[in-house]
Amino acid sequence: MDQQQRIQNVHRNGGTGETSYSANSSVQKKVILITRPIVEEAILNMLSNLYGNNTISAATSKPRKTTIGITELGCSSGPNALSVVSRTLEMIYNKHCESGIVMPEILVFLNDLPSNDFNTLFKDVGNFCDDLRRTKGDDSGPCFAAGMPGTFYGRLFPSDTLHFVHSSYSLHWLSQKDFKIFLECRSEELVEGGRMVLTLVARSSSEDPTSKECCSFWELLSMSAHDMVLQGAIEEENLNLFNFPNYFPSPEEVKCIINGEGSFTINQLETFHVSWDCSDPKGDESVTNKLRSAYYMANVFRAVSEPLLANHFGEEIMDLLYDRFRERMAEYATKEKTEFTTLVISMTKGHKLPISEV
Amino acid sequence: MDQQQRIQNVHRNGGTGETSYSANSSVQKKVILITRPIVEEAILNMLSNLYGNNTISAATSKPRKTTIGITELGCSSGPNALSVVSRTLEMIYNKHCESGIVMPEILVFLNDLPSNDFNTLFKDVGNFCDDLRRTKGDDSGPCFAAGMPGTFYGRLFPSDTLHFVHSSYSLHWLSQKDFKIFLECRSEELVEGGRMVLTLVARSSSEDPTSKECCSFWELLSMSAHDMVLQGAIEEENLNLFNFPNYFPSPEEVKCIINGEGSFTINQLETFHVSWDCSDPKGDESVTNKLRSAYYMANVFRAVSEPLLANHFGEEIMDLLYDRFRERMAEYATKEKTEFTTLVISMTKGHKLPISEV
Repeated sequence: MDQQQRIQNVHRNGGTGETSYSANSSVQKKVILITRPIVEEAILNMLSNLYGNNTISAATSKPRKTTIGITELGCSSGPNALSVVSRTLEMIYNKHCESGIVMPEILVFLNDLPSNDFNTLFKDVGNFCDDLRRTKGDDSGPCFAAGMPGTFYGRLFPSDTLHFVHSSYSLHWLSQKDFKIFLECRSEELVEGGRMVLTLVARSSSEDPTSKECCSFWELLSMSAHDMVLQGAIEEENLNLFNFPNYFPSPEEVKCIINGEGSFTINQLETFHVSWDCSDPKGDESVTNKLRSAYYMANVFRAVSEPLLANHFGEEIMDLLYDRFRERMAEYATKEKTEFTTLVISMTKGHKLPISEV
Repeated sequence: MDQQQRIQNVHRNGGTGETSYSANSSVQKKVILITRPIVEEAILNMLSNLYGNNTISAATSKPRKTTIGITELGCSSGPNALSVVSRTLEMIYNKHCESGIVMPEILVFLNDLPSNDFNTLFKDVGNFCDDLRRTKGDDSGPCFAAGMPGTFYGRLFPSDTLHFVHSSYSLHWLSQKDFKIFLECRSEELVEGGRMVLTLVARSSSEDPTSKECCSFWELLSMSAHDMVLQGAIEEENLNLFNFPNYFPSPEEVKCIINGEGSFTINQLETFHVSWDCSDPKGDESVTNKLRSAYYMANVFRAVSEPLLANHFGEEIMDLLYDRFRERMAEYATKEKTEFTTLVISMTKGHKLPISEV
């Protein structure tokens, strides 16, 4: 499988069934809640940039139509796909109601790979837009939601189209080189002063990139695949041909790539820990609870990894493989700390002025 | 079924199977070929408007990024969805190569109802973009294709976003009022001087709007549904609750609505005839051939009407209903002329200057 093919299969399970991403995404929801203050700060700052030099009052001048472009990269489908978009719209409306500035039009791009389940996503978009009209009325100004299929390791949008870019738990990039390309593309697409908030699984320090804290999932999945070789369900040769396309960077590595690329100023960069079952880290640590977490987390992980593995090993052995994976997760949970590290970065397109120019 | 619900079900059969729109859309393809010169004239005119007052040479000035917005309304999925978009891109590239103007970025919006099969469409978009890169190389400038789910009887895009709007065989509007709303929405979305080409089934003259030439399909389908009532497969009460949401206007009616709305200047308005099997109207008129045409046309019509009928009468009687419809079509074909009238309108957003102002 070459990189192009691999990228095509890095999507989540579609639909709404038991193994779907839609039914197994509450870790992702928890992470969105934790990072919410950072997202809100970024949106307010983006709006100040947009209107700071260009305040047009509805009362004094002819309404000028502004279009604010926002995107959710790797949105998938299900309950999380629209949650940050929804909060962003709410904040824009509130800002405009407060200030009396003419309400902008908003163009939302929902991005994921072409193999994502856009049909399910668009059903939710319809309900979302109906709700918006019901709660905000016609005064809210039009909001348009488009699906944008494609990989974010290439250009996705016209130049100077976006004011806010968000991505949560989809950017565990394939390599440092890929991340640099990602930044270059977004730099073309964001307006000057536009904001970007990215959340991804990471290492909490710059130690060994294969350390236990971040790689345990892939390692356990890899061990489960090995078990399948021993059972004769997977050929050893085929397993050797497969590479898990993930890389979890440390905060220092991320800083270094962003500063090296040069288009963005980092505003905030933080790490935090999330337990496998989204519970309070100081909560119930009983074996029963740990096993429940492991079972839950195995399902979450299946929802995000199955399309990739099914494409390589075949649909028919997926139940067997993920049953073994669940057992491996349970074994691990009784012995190790069941949490992982998450990194959130908020940045601005463009540069802070050097002190001498302020 | 209220109008909102009805709109939600006016889409074509998805997928690529025997009854899919994808496998039954060669009449639509034929119509796209016939209207091609009108579409090409509109695109060239749009490009002249765009660059007439604003010629920027790549050699003499800093490249300025222009984004050209184009949309295919009611694109469905299958081989026709991208064919006009493809020709439009080709013409834009040729124009820019000839003139040395900096290549623009192009944003394509593929619109259909949320219930359209966007998953199948996006697979084709991926191949389409790959082909584009292969044939045009990196010099072609980026082209971005987004899916825009929603009804075109409301706003779909931000203001002043579109340069060219195309729709073929999807705009057999529900009523004159709906068409006026359609024009008002597109007028907001098109830039001044932007072009729109619409193709739709019509009556060729202003005579009785229920005349045979345009209504035979719906009438035959309605008669088939009545046959099902006699067989006990459909309840009479349920049939009475159902209304076919189509209206086929005459050229005079269309002109009158466009001029009344006031945002557009009509450049061309023509009608032409298409035979049921896409053959030359003076071709083989044997009974065998007419039966073949009727069979073919019954499939085409099933692909565009089944979702609407299945929603009202239930999936399970669709095969039975369309078998009867095929028989009715065959009976009709041996007695009547098997062709229908199509109307194409090309218009410009904005007005020709009155003579005194020229």
